[in-house]
Parts: sequence; structure tokens; C-alpha cells
Amino acid sequence: MKEFQLIDQFFNGRGPLRRDVVHGIGDDCALVQPSEGKQLAISCDTLVEGVHFFADMPARALGYKALAVNLSDLAAMGAEPAWMTLALSLPQAEEAWLSEFSTGLFEAADYYGIALIGGDTTASPVKMFSITVHGQVPAGKALTRYGAHVGDWVYVTGTLGDSALGLDLLRGVEQTRPEHREYLIERHYRPVPRVLAGQSLRGLASSAIDLSDGLVSDLGHILKASGVGANIEVENLPLSQALKDSVSLDRALAYALTGGEDYELLFTVPEAQRGALEIALSHAGVKFVRIGQINAGNRLKLQLNGEPFTPEFKGFEHF
Amino acid sequence: MKEFQLIDQFFNGRGPLRRDVVHGIGDDCALVQPSEGKQLAISCDTLVEGVHFFADMPARALGYKALAVNLSDLAAMGAEPAWMTLALSLPQAEEAWLSEFSTGLFEAADYYGIALIGGDTTASPVKMFSITVHGQVPAGKALTRYGAHVGDWVYVTGTLGDSALGLDLLRGVEQTRPEHREYLIERHYRPVPRVLAGQSLRGLASSAIDLSDGLVSDLGHILKASGVGANIEVENLPLSQALKDSVSLDRALAYALTGGEDYELLFTVPEAQRGALEIALSHAGVKFVRIGQINAGNRLKLQLNGEPFTPEFKGFEHF
Repeated sequence: MKEFQLIDQFFNGRGPLRRDVVHGIGDDCALVQPSEGKQLAISCDTLVEGVHFFADMPARALGYKALAVNLSDLAAMGAEPAWMTLALSLPQAEEAWLSEFSTGLFEAADYYGIALIGGDTTASPVKMFSITVHGQVPAGKALTRYGAHVGDWVYVTGTLGDSALGLDLLRGVEQTRPEHREYLIERHYRPVPRVLAGQSLRGLASSAIDLSDGLVSDLGHILKASGVGANIEVENLPLSQALKDSVSLDRALAYALTGGEDYELLFTVPEAQRGALEIALSHAGVKFVRIGQINAGNRLKLQLNGEPFTPEFKGFEHF
Repeated sequence: MKEFQLIDQFFNGRGPLRRDVVHGIGDDCALVQPSEGKQLAISCDTLVEGVHFFADMPARALGYKALAVNLSDLAAMGAEPAWMTLALSLPQAEEAWLSEFSTGLFEAADYYGIALIGGDTTASPVKMFSITVHGQVPAGKALTRYGAHVGDWVYVTGTLGDSALGLDLLRGVEQTRPEHREYLIERHYRPVPRVLAGQSLRGLASSAIDLSDGLVSDLGHILKASGVGANIEVENLPLSQALKDSVSLDRALAYALTGGEDYELLFTVPEAQRGALEIALSHAGVKFVRIGQINAGNRLKLQLNGEPFTPEFKGFEHF
């Protein structure tokens, strides 16, 4: 395991300096100082080679994405990123890979201000890593899945479906125009966690979730947790020009509804907060669009121009 | 991955109820309420089958130990256990194994009052899990590795070397009397994290660490971090009757000095605090013994009855 000392050089002393990190890496535990009046949001995600990412995924993108998907969970709670631990398990300590992976990880860490305070490095048959992120949110202000009420409007940030198409381009099962390829793959490799938007939604959104499994699945989590139904007008789903140029409209809508890994925010907002929402999100610099409304049912209804709509992908089931 | 729904049934809703868990498992993040005036101690350990434990280790012991070794890190900081996340990766979801593993995990969780607030379950080629524990400690009162001063006394809790001998019994490279076998293997499988003792040392100990790699190695961490040396009188090392009955004294001392996985606390105490220490640790109900003293050097000197002592195991290097 002596080779794992190599790992230290790529992770110790990097990332943002935070005053609330009393001791970082190097003792039995890290020691941090939570802010008064705040609650902690904590989330943990594991990525395994061959299960969650291909062996040939560029290490830098992997390091970035490993953290970004965790930050997306903090965003969905309206929390400010604070600290993380990294459990890194590798067949061997390859210097070039570690250099790239850590560079990607700290690109995200520096940008979003999250400090690496500890972790563990071990040998294992495949590359895998588990990141636990900690964010802070004013007490009682966290966004959850279970606050959606009848009449609330359903919104989503960014554009949907790009990441899933990007993955299919990498897998070679889809084609696109040359000028769109890099954008779509980048959307898969480097999702943008909506950290600032999530914080802007505190006190405005009645519920929120990040889109990791796809709109249909993730909206289903909100509906189930909140005990409500929803109508979604799929003609209002935000689609990128790249997605629309690459596949048929039906297929684009299927990507947007069931594709997964968009890491955009899906949230509900009461009518009374709509004006405040426009102002708040414009400050966060993120595009967002209204795609439907919460109703008193217990199902997700998809409509295209007023007609029932079922996406073409198998694997789709009505909630 | 549908089989992994099985996992939920073994982990959700179990463990101690804590009022400071605002939301547990089931949202994008868990939400917890840190206590005012406290700092958080956070530690992360990964255990991989074939690297950290044998494939035939009983699942219940494994579940217990996976948490116990993390709690030991909290103990070494003087922190009170609060919350944990569990990243569990398995080739398949075996119901019998999960039942036993979770039973062992929650034995430790219930006893030490730590709540499982989140995690992730994934497929992987081998069994592995990474636990991140969170404890609370009054601001400024955490025990660290770097406070040992010249003249401070060196103490250790419990007895040393039992776990390493227990491991060697399991590996079949050592023998013992039938009446000692179970005790020694239990010491390897079910270490007792010194959680209450660690809290009792706050304000008394000048430094502390838990014994995971062996006394020589772990005391080395304190000496290096504190910039001091130490004399250890190895005749004062606490040895169990089982260890003494099983091997020669030289070998018993070698186990105690370099064996590892004792998960006892090693700590230093200024002369002025010795009286208070006796009272504090007697309330914690843990045995402890003075084994040496910090000096102004930068080396660890081992002495047996006044003569320099070198343990017989290879792999030992003077600090």
C-alpha cells in the first residue's frame, strides 16, 4: 500500500481554504465548525467503474463529475457546499490518472467552494469512489421533495435530454452533426450542478429535486412524497438546439423525459411566489421554464398539445 | 439493480432515534441540526473484501466492526457519535448476508447512539463499504495528535496485541489454548471503540490517537505531529492473560507493539492532570495504564527493564 502515499500528493492541501475547517486531513477525524443557525445537508454517492462510468472515461471529467453529481444533491436541498470526504479505491495508484482525476475534482471543488477534509484510499479490484458532501442551509429553509401542493407550478432549469444523448453518442448508438457532438458529450461528462439556483429557491419553491434518473422518474419522487399528481405539457420541455437537430421530436422528448443525468433542478412553486421566483432566478443566471402544474390526483399525466403523450422509449412506466 | 431495493428493508428506519436528525434517508440529502457551540468531527473508512477482511468473516461481526473502527476515530477526538452515511457495494444482494451485516451494524449504532442518515448502494465486483461518521465535540475541546509536550505521560487503555493474535489464529499461523481462542478472535472481530473514555479525556489529555496500525506506528504519528520523542517501558504494556498464555513474552510484546487493530486509545497527559485523569477514566469504566513519557528527542525509544528493546517482528522500524 506504500504506493498509495502517492495519492496524498494529489489531494492534500488542494481545494479552497475555508475558515470553518479547523483541522483538515491528517488526524483521526477532520474537525469543522458549523455556522450558527444552520442545518447540515449530507449526501453520499458511489461511482463504480463498469457500473456508473466506462473504463475509458477521461479521468479529469470523471473527477469533476464525481463531485458535481454530489453538489447537485446539495443544490436540490438549497444548501451551500461546505466540506466533503473522498473514499477512493483503485487497483493501483497510476500517477497520470490520479493527476487528471484530482485536477477535475478540484476544478469543481474550487468553483463551488467545497473543501476536501478527509477520506480513505484503498486497493480494490476496480476503480470506485464514494464522496460524502456536506452543505449548510438556514434552519427550516431546506428544500425537500414533499412540499408540492395542488395548483403549484412545475419548473425545470436548463435543457433536458442532452446528457443521455451524449451518452448514446459515446456508446455509438446515436449520431449527430459534427458541430453538436462536443457539446452533447460535454453535457454528459460535465454536468453543471445548479448550486446557486438551489439556494435562490429557498422560501420560494414548495419542493425540489435534482434530475439524476430522468424527469418522469424524479418528478415521480416528488409526487409520491407530496401525495399529489401533475400535468406536464411536454411541448414546453426545454430542448437544446443540439438535441432537436440530432433526433426526431418524439425521440428528443423521450430523452428529455426519461434520459437521466441532466442534473438540472425540478421544482414546484406556488402561484403567489411566481413573481419573486423570476427575480431570484435571474440573479442566479440560470434559465428556467414552466412545464406543468401539480393536481389533486396521484399520477403523472404527460400531454403534447393537449393530447395524452407516451414517450417512445421502453422502460417508461406511468407513475 | 432492482434487487437493491432489498437493501432498504435492512437499513431504513433502524438505529437510534435522534432529535437532531431533521430528515433521514429518502431525500436528495439528509438534514441534521448540529448543536450550538459544538464542532463536528468527521472521519471516513473503507473496508474491501480481500484487502481489509476475509471473504469468510461472519457478516454480523463485519457490520459491527465496520462501524466500530469509525467510532474509534471519533473516540480519539473526544467526540460524541451523532450521524453516519454508508456506501455499500456488493456483487449481489444476498438476503442472509444483508440481514446479518445490518444486525451487526445496528448493534454498534444502537449502543453508541449514532443514526444512519443516508448512503448509497451499488453493484461492484467485490464486497466493500465506506462509512463516514460524524461526531460532535465542544468547540476547541477536540483531542488531536499534536499537543504532546515534553514530560507528559503516555497512557493506553485496555490490553494490546489481542486482536493481532486473534487474526493470526484465524489465519492458522498461531495456536492458543482452547479456552482463549474465542476471546482472542472476538477481540479481532469486535473491537470496543473507547467512545466514553475519549470524551472523558477532553481537557485532560494533551494528545490522543486510536490504535489501528499498532502502538509503535500510531505513537509515531503523535510524536511526529507534536515534534517530540518518547520513552516506552515495554514491561508496562498491558497484556491479557490470553496473550501471555499463548506466546512467548518477546512475541507477546511484539504483538502489543506492532500488531494493530486494537482500537484502544493512546494518549498523553501532563503531570498536573494525572489526578483528574484517574477520576475521569474511572467514571468511563475503562482500564488504562501508564507506559512511558514524552521526551525532548524526536525518536521513540523502547526499553525493557531499562535495556533497549527491539520487537522480534520484521516490519518494525524505529521512528
